[in-house]
Amino acid sequence: MKIALLGGTGDIAEGLVLRWSKAGHEIFIGSRSEEKALGITNEYKEKLDSLGIESKISGMANADAAKAAEVVIISIPPEYAAATINQIKDSFTDQIVVTPVVSMERKEDKSFVYNPPAQGSSAFEIQEALPSTARLVSAYHNLPAKELSKIEEDLDYDVVICGDDEEAKEVVKQLTEDMPTMRVLDAGPLKVSAMIEALTPLIVNLNVRYKHHFSVKFV
Amino acid sequence: MKIALLGGTGDIAEGLVLRWSKAGHEIFIGSRSEEKALGITNEYKEKLDSLGIESKISGMANADAAKAAEVVIISIPPEYAAATINQIKDSFTDQIVVTPVVSMERKEDKSFVYNPPAQGSSAFEIQEALPSTARLVSAYHNLPAKELSKIEEDLDYDVVICGDDEEAKEVVKQLTEDMPTMRVLDAGPLKVSAMIEALTPLIVNLNVRYKHHFSVKFV
Repeated sequence: MKIALLGGTGDIAEGLVLRWSKAGHEIFIGSRSEEKALGITNEYKEKLDSLGIESKISGMANADAAKAAEVVIISIPPEYAAATINQIKDSFTDQIVVTPVVSMERKEDKSFVYNPPAQGSSAFEIQEALPSTARLVSAYHNLPAKELSKIEEDLDYDVVICGDDEEAKEVVKQLTEDMPTMRVLDAGPLKVSAMIEALTPLIVNLNVRYKHHFSVKFV
Repeated sequence: MKIALLGGTGDIAEGLVLRWSKAGHEIFIGSRSEEKALGITNEYKEKLDSLGIESKISGMANADAAKAAEVVIISIPPEYAAATINQIKDSFTDQIVVTPVVSMERKEDKSFVYNPPAQGSSAFEIQEALPSTARLVSAYHNLPAKELSKIEEDLDYDVVICGDDEEAKEVVKQLTEDMPTMRVLDAGPLKVSAMIEALTPLIVNLNVRYKHHFSVKFV
């Protein structure tokens, strides 16, 4: 599939780009400027080359990356995600849009708490910024970036997703299964996203305390 | 240890009573009326007898059960939990109090969402009702009741807890390990409880969709 990663740098972007390239998908790296996107793209290309993986990956401005793709991953920090989408709203028609966005706050005692926007969840905030034709799926909040980027390793994690478009969720399920051996669990409509997003700061607290990169499995 | 279960009927209470009795702890079942508590206690006694487990279990009014115990489990529905504690506030000194309380709402489309009280979490609401000498730990929100009550089976689950008193959390850790083979993960101070509580409606949604009784493991 044609997959765009907007703000395609840092955090889980690297692992997604490497694993989806390995599975044969075509990747569009979007950034605020085409120049920056090309720079990131070259880094990924070199990494993929060194791993012996043939890559179909190009860099461009966010608006062009979104337009070119069937699936758009919002790999943008929470404070900029909705604003960025608003700026390039015209690039969206009926794409599947995936939000892994989580807004959290670090308290004085160094613990992290979930800090959703006024809409109740980052998913709802992003839905408000998108045209109503786009099909939003909330997913990939709780993937440990470091483990995700070790593409020679299979990952025995559950990915909890939600959204209001069944077909879009099915596509995300297939894309997730292209990153073996993760399992998708569908938690229902987009309105349950707050509870999936809240898992991330909980996991961050556990990571700090136990010096580990936790993900989650439902047993 | 001397453990009270206030409102000790239904949901996870049965599994806790059976497993802690098996581990040799003394149990006080509290209810609004002594009569009701004695009725519940007799049911548990019969069940324990039939399983060949010697029981030290007695029924009494909530106030007396709380007074008699070193650890008090708030096994009361979210809408009554804080009010019940307020009514028997004088029964609490420095006990360890455990809240598994989660407030959730069922939406028209049958999905469940986390619906915390004004204080931000049920743990904060209950802390407000308790005297400041009591030591509150948030735990046991996400245990599947049915599996918990099958005491011949070991449970390979993680129990995420939080609280502001390290010693109290250590006691809860030991009590949890008395129910093999559950592992306690300490997520930090009481202020992270909302994120642990929010996991419960997420799991309920998964249970409905996948017809399973999920619990969680952090891997």
